[in-house]
Amino acid sequence: MRLRYVKGSEEKIEKSPYTILDYKNYKGKVNKIFKNKNNILEIEIGMGKGDFIINKAKQNKNINFIGIEKYTSVLVRAVEKLEKESLDNLRILNIDANDIDEIFDKEVNLIYLNFSDPWPKEKHAKRRLTHINFLKKYDKIFKSNKHIIMKTDNRHLFEYSLISFINYGYKIINISLDLHKDEIFNIETEYENKFSKLGPIYMVEIIK
Amino acid sequence: MRLRYVKGSEEKIEKSPYTILDYKNYKGKVNKIFKNKNNILEIEIGMGKGDFIINKAKQNKNINFIGIEKYTSVLVRAVEKLEKESLDNLRILNIDANDIDEIFDKEVNLIYLNFSDPWPKEKHAKRRLTHINFLKKYDKIFKSNKHIIMKTDNRHLFEYSLISFINYGYKIINISLDLHKDEIFNIETEYENKFSKLGPIYMVEIIK
Repeated sequence: MRLRYVKGSEEKIEKSPYTILDYKNYKGKVNKIFKNKNNILEIEIGMGKGDFIINKAKQNKNINFIGIEKYTSVLVRAVEKLEKESLDNLRILNIDANDIDEIFDKEVNLIYLNFSDPWPKEKHAKRRLTHINFLKKYDKIFKSNKHIIMKTDNRHLFEYSLISFINYGYKIINISLDLHKDEIFNIETEYENKFSKLGPIYMVEIIK
Repeated sequence: MRLRYVKGSEEKIEKSPYTILDYKNYKGKVNKIFKNKNNILEIEIGMGKGDFIINKAKQNKNINFIGIEKYTSVLVRAVEKLEKESLDNLRILNIDANDIDEIFDKEVNLIYLNFSDPWPKEKHAKRRLTHINFLKKYDKIFKSNKHIIMKTDNRHLFEYSLISFINYGYKIINISLDLHKDEIFNIETEYENKFSKLGPIYMVEIIK
């Protein structure tokens, strides 16, 4: 995705009541950030403009959600959407995915990876969020059971990720090679909504 | 596939020099059926009209191939094609896939599953060639390493099979969710040639 610079986005994100700034005080007890009694924590790495996780949070009040996004120019759009909402079970983090194990410690129940950057060049494989180095990081932040749900329209990223997951010991509990043709409940991302007309959306749910 | 009755096909198959009739004498030493020194044996379960395995045999003279097909009305077409060939490394078997462990015993290097019947109804799942009951049978006929290459145009069969393979402990070494868009070497089946225009061909190569 080519990113446009959006003036004032850093300040807007920092000032949002949804943004977690003092995350370093909460490692291992992230659910304490929320003013509720929920003890299930699900995160989306690469939340983009937030459509998916905002809807998830609205529909699952008993679960806490944290959306992570590195790019302020897209994250600011999520912040704008959140101005009209009042959600006590959603927070956002403007950090790089590489730093997730500095924020979370054995406390995440589920990771969503939606339309992650495919990094098509082989020399950039380590940047893919399904590279073994990331899978090792995820191990450190998962509470007990490891549980990932991935969606993408990028065939090569999906093929790569399947091999990566399986060779790391994950089992498949659910898979669709054309999600929008299946009659299952699906919350769309803003990206998905735009691109599903162009080809299949792939989805896999894995556990370890 | 709806099958037409082809008159005289049983007799034609039985009389073909390519057909193995006395297979019960060769269990555990199937390579002895061939008049060559090859010691690699690869089989295709559901060879249909034979395009795939005939081409495989032509291009790999150092490997022995056995094609298996239950339906005489399609197998007879393979027999007719073979009348024009002289291949010492290919034989055919007119048996049901359920009986493969009565024919082979720890001697198969690779199994090809091409465009297998998807048996879409859940009550027929046990008939799918990638059902766990078949995977258990395959364990008995593989020499040492287990190695399967599957191709299909049926998305639901492919999704089902991936889960079945992975949960049985197979690792993925190669996968394509649109084989004909990838620039890899591929021998087509007669079915594939006809149907690849209608949608993606899925391929997975697994080992255990």
